[in-house]
Amino acid sequence: MTRLIISQLAMEKLLKKYGAKRVSESAKTALSEALEEIGKKIGEKAQKYSEHSGRKTIKSKDIKLAVKETNF
Amino acid sequence: MTRLIISQLAMEKLLKKYGAKRVSESAKTALSEALEEIGKKIGEKAQKYSEHSGRKTIKSKDIKLAVKETNF
Repeated sequence: MTRLIISQLAMEKLLKKYGAKRVSESAKTALSEALEEIGKKIGEKAQKYSEHSGRKTIKSKDIKLAVKETNF
Repeated sequence: MTRLIISQLAMEKLLKKYGAKRVSESAKTALSEALEEIGKKIGEKAQKYSEHSGRKTIKSKDIKLAVKETNF
């Protein structure tokens, strides 16, 4: 398994914030993996948009456009 | 602003892992907010699926089904 960037603890907090009573360890891992995969897609698009604008820094407007363009 | 569950540091690591050179603070916040919103949708669905199966614990199969059903 690859090292997860988004912590298991954050995933537990998130799931409990939105109604979960109990959460298995593997469920936290599954959510972390899913969000990293989605974050990867958003990040790669945001990177293209920042380069397209002649910048080396990703700004929030790049992220927001990438989120819109990623069809959630 | 509401307190973010997914850390800014994790967002910076994720963006840099997938090609970002530099990332503004507000971009990290924007990505954290977007992933929390997506995580909320997945979590609420997973919660329904676990209840539907007569369980109080969210398992990884609930998360995986919720990810599939959330149209990414």
